[in-house]
Amino acid sequence: MTSDRITLAHGGGSAEMQRLIQEMFLPTFDNSQLATMEDQARLNWQLQPGERLAFSTDTFVVSPLTFPGGDIATLAVNGTVNDVAMSGAVPKVLSCAMVIEEGLLQSQLQTLCQSMARAASAAGVQIVTGDTKVVPKGQADQLYINTSGLGVIASGVDLGTHRIAEGDHVLVSGPIGEHGATIISCREDLSLDADIASDCQPLHQLVCAMLAAIPGVKSLRDATRGGVAAVLHEFATASRLSILLSEQDIPVSAPVNAMCELLGFNPLHLACEGRLIAVVSAQHSEDCLAAMRNHPAGDQAAMIGRVITSAPSPVIIESSLGVKRALAPADGELLPRIC
Amino acid sequence: MTSDRITLAHGGGSAEMQRLIQEMFLPTFDNSQLATMEDQARLNWQLQPGERLAFSTDTFVVSPLTFPGGDIATLAVNGTVNDVAMSGAVPKVLSCAMVIEEGLLQSQLQTLCQSMARAASAAGVQIVTGDTKVVPKGQADQLYINTSGLGVIASGVDLGTHRIAEGDHVLVSGPIGEHGATIISCREDLSLDADIASDCQPLHQLVCAMLAAIPGVKSLRDATRGGVAAVLHEFATASRLSILLSEQDIPVSAPVNAMCELLGFNPLHLACEGRLIAVVSAQHSEDCLAAMRNHPAGDQAAMIGRVITSAPSPVIIESSLGVKRALAPADGELLPRIC
Repeated sequence: MTSDRITLAHGGGSAEMQRLIQEMFLPTFDNSQLATMEDQARLNWQLQPGERLAFSTDTFVVSPLTFPGGDIATLAVNGTVNDVAMSGAVPKVLSCAMVIEEGLLQSQLQTLCQSMARAASAAGVQIVTGDTKVVPKGQADQLYINTSGLGVIASGVDLGTHRIAEGDHVLVSGPIGEHGATIISCREDLSLDADIASDCQPLHQLVCAMLAAIPGVKSLRDATRGGVAAVLHEFATASRLSILLSEQDIPVSAPVNAMCELLGFNPLHLACEGRLIAVVSAQHSEDCLAAMRNHPAGDQAAMIGRVITSAPSPVIIESSLGVKRALAPADGELLPRIC
Repeated sequence: MTSDRITLAHGGGSAEMQRLIQEMFLPTFDNSQLATMEDQARLNWQLQPGERLAFSTDTFVVSPLTFPGGDIATLAVNGTVNDVAMSGAVPKVLSCAMVIEEGLLQSQLQTLCQSMARAASAAGVQIVTGDTKVVPKGQADQLYINTSGLGVIASGVDLGTHRIAEGDHVLVSGPIGEHGATIISCREDLSLDADIASDCQPLHQLVCAMLAAIPGVKSLRDATRGGVAAVLHEFATASRLSILLSEQDIPVSAPVNAMCELLGFNPLHLACEGRLIAVVSAQHSEDCLAAMRNHPAGDQAAMIGRVITSAPSPVIIESSLGVKRALAPADGELLPRIC
């Protein structure tokens, strides 16, 4: 049905585009900022002394658009919510800019918008401004979504790699690699295991719980592209220290492990979309872990390693037999369009 | 030369991606926020009582990437700067999220980044956070750039379509349609006239000058996709009033006019990237025009129409002979990927 497809006219500043905005985006993302139909949101925020704004952006190009545990829309909300939250901020608002390939079914776009609205509502953020571009067939693959996010960092919260020190502990909020394994499973049409689903979820409430529990949270990052390995390499490089991982302590679910063994992947290289890595002071590590395990998004949290003095390899992994080897960062071509 | 091309590895969270960020983006967009290499910028803004944040987003998919008067990078800066500025805000920071097609020349990306840095510097904004995705060949066309922008609206500034009233005057900041005519000329390889160049420029300083000059600025919008006609339709629809244009007062350059006559375009439907439409109270219209003409970005500003009581057509254009006709909005399929 031609009329159910997005056409170039929907991106051209025309009456069709106005109709798309009026009939799909406004009612679905329903809020007073969008309803003004201005070219920008206007936020009446009373920042208290010492509070700061956190501002982040991410474009989502995941393929396929829908997968077990989520879709590009939930990813676009939670991905940016998490990037904002890793500063210790409470995320407040998102922008949403879509690049749509001509021919996408309007019904599919509507379903994804509804999913996005649900994810935003679940994360407590509003989608307050947006943009829609349509490109001719073959010049994008179905749909790409950029979200940018704004949140507020409370006074006194100062997280970052500058605070990482020798002796700190490295925690992970749950089993790793589930988003990556899910996308591989979809792409390869493996149907290996019905138990694999993306871990896509918002993490800011977990972060709030951690910050409330202990004063020693030093640096947070969510593991996405490049997996946990990429985050650990970033931490090591930025702090000019090394990280020693304990292989047996890294939580990996049985289905992810099975897939990795079958296909030769390392779970540390697989993307997550709802897991954070925390560097915390050794003295507060136990309390932090307890607070994380008390929260649904961190109930399988684990301590997986320590920050050590700079070694020849930025990240070292120690097996249960005590054998140490370097952990290389992921090969970037492994999984294009994972998020 | 293979090594000069962007590969999927540059988007995969790998060492290659880190190198691209470290060697291209950080030095080119050089600022302390980016240098922290965190997943978000952290803005230490002390908002005064009554001040508000303006937040806007736009993805740029223009083809070709480079054209007389600008490129996708200057467009990505000025487009979002202008969307923020139309609220009356002073734009402060931008995010930059790129979707790069595998195979793009790194040297071309570097040139565009330098152009983006220059445009940001000229507009007085910093690019403080970013994201890079690479998609396989054929899943994007070279490069798409999303920018989101943040600015500060001064206390007491309240622009918007809610303030438009019968009798208000409609002003335009300069000759219209130059960006659209430029892109058509490039696409069709017309080489009709060497004098056509995009009007791409930042408008926030012009807006500041207007707000300083008169109290009667009511609503501002920059004319991009769909041209001046789209903005006038938006103003009419939102205010439930109509707009009567005086055809002879609409500034159109001779080359744009010639191209429109040759190809059958209406300049009111052609995109601009550095022109704003202002609705101002009749009593302040003359002073506003004087202030605009005093600024380089508005030196050819003109009054082009009036807000009238709701008529059967939202926008009506009156010829020099007094003949009135309805002005339809642009056909959205006219010019895909104009911005």
